[in-house]
Amino acid sequence: MTVPSAYIERVAKEFSKLPGIGNKSASRIAFYLLKMEKKEVENLATSMIDLKNNIKTCIKCGGISDLDICSICSDMGRDHRTLCVVESARDVLNIEATGEFKGNYHVLSGLISPLDGIGPDDLNINSLVNKCGTDGLDEVIMALSPTIEGDATTLYIASLISSFGINVTRIAHGLPVGSDLEYVDSATIAKSIEGRVKI
Amino acid sequence: MTVPSAYIERVAKEFSKLPGIGNKSASRIAFYLLKMEKKEVENLATSMIDLKNNIKTCIKCGGISDLDICSICSDMGRDHRTLCVVESARDVLNIEATGEFKGNYHVLSGLISPLDGIGPDDLNINSLVNKCGTDGLDEVIMALSPTIEGDATTLYIASLISSFGINVTRIAHGLPVGSDLEYVDSATIAKSIEGRVKI
Repeated sequence: MTVPSAYIERVAKEFSKLPGIGNKSASRIAFYLLKMEKKEVENLATSMIDLKNNIKTCIKCGGISDLDICSICSDMGRDHRTLCVVESARDVLNIEATGEFKGNYHVLSGLISPLDGIGPDDLNINSLVNKCGTDGLDEVIMALSPTIEGDATTLYIASLISSFGINVTRIAHGLPVGSDLEYVDSATIAKSIEGRVKI
Repeated sequence: MTVPSAYIERVAKEFSKLPGIGNKSASRIAFYLLKMEKKEVENLATSMIDLKNNIKTCIKCGGISDLDICSICSDMGRDHRTLCVVESARDVLNIEATGEFKGNYHVLSGLISPLDGIGPDDLNINSLVNKCGTDGLDEVIMALSPTIEGDATTLYIASLISSFGINVTRIAHGLPVGSDLEYVDSATIAKSIEGRVKI
């Protein structure tokens, strides 16, 4: 196969490295860029460079931020007595998208996973324990994925901070909204029965 | 919803303008860029800028090229007596990917479409007629999409160049390989019967 332009080939190759973009999509995007205004392509390119050059880690929550302290941690309108513990900075956005939570976040930057060689010391856990001692928290909500690693991390942290007298909760595991009981796996149904609530 | 970084928000917004990338995928890519090496992100960004700054239109076939004449038109190992007429530069790559065709291409840059205000003069048809008069062609293969616009353009060009005594052919319309007759639409089945070949 002859590709008549090395530039097209290079763009398509670079795009195909991104998640969710295969060779066909990458080639489609490369040709789409040809039709776009030069200014728009430059905007896309510089937005990536700016991101890499300027993004910071919030010194309070460990999530992503443009400043030393992120806009969530510095927002005085939020409930600073409720802390939601998440695995990654992306989970902050996923929870923010629901509009249901108005407290603060704490990003662990991973989960305990002995098989991958990740222990408690590799995660942002010490600063969480410090917060429990000093920040006057009422509640710590553990919002990790319902996997073996997520559950192990949740239990580990809950036992670590149990002595502070803070209410430690875990987000509910059960049937996803809109699902059909017939097609839901039995582990999930079992969790939903175990976690049943009074109507 | 609070997004703790305007940089992430901007990258996600720019990526969501590309074809096949929705808001979720764009956000996923933005976070993926955070994990990538800075050098890799720069490679991606500069590949796009280089593409916009350097890509040319081949003066012979009208397809994309890095030089004035593309690598296909300048390849003396190809069969310059067979010309394949396609709608867009991307179709050149689609046909090249099959490895079945070793002739040259001619890119129309569109199809005749009166509803969209596109007539024969808006397309790269005059130079095709000139080629038929001067390039000593044996065969012109019309490889346009089997749509109303594609068929109209095929018939228009075939009638224009019929006087040159060149063999004008059209790629076969019929059942896609691996399809099930039960699920193929009747127009396609009708075309496949009309275009049947001797075994």
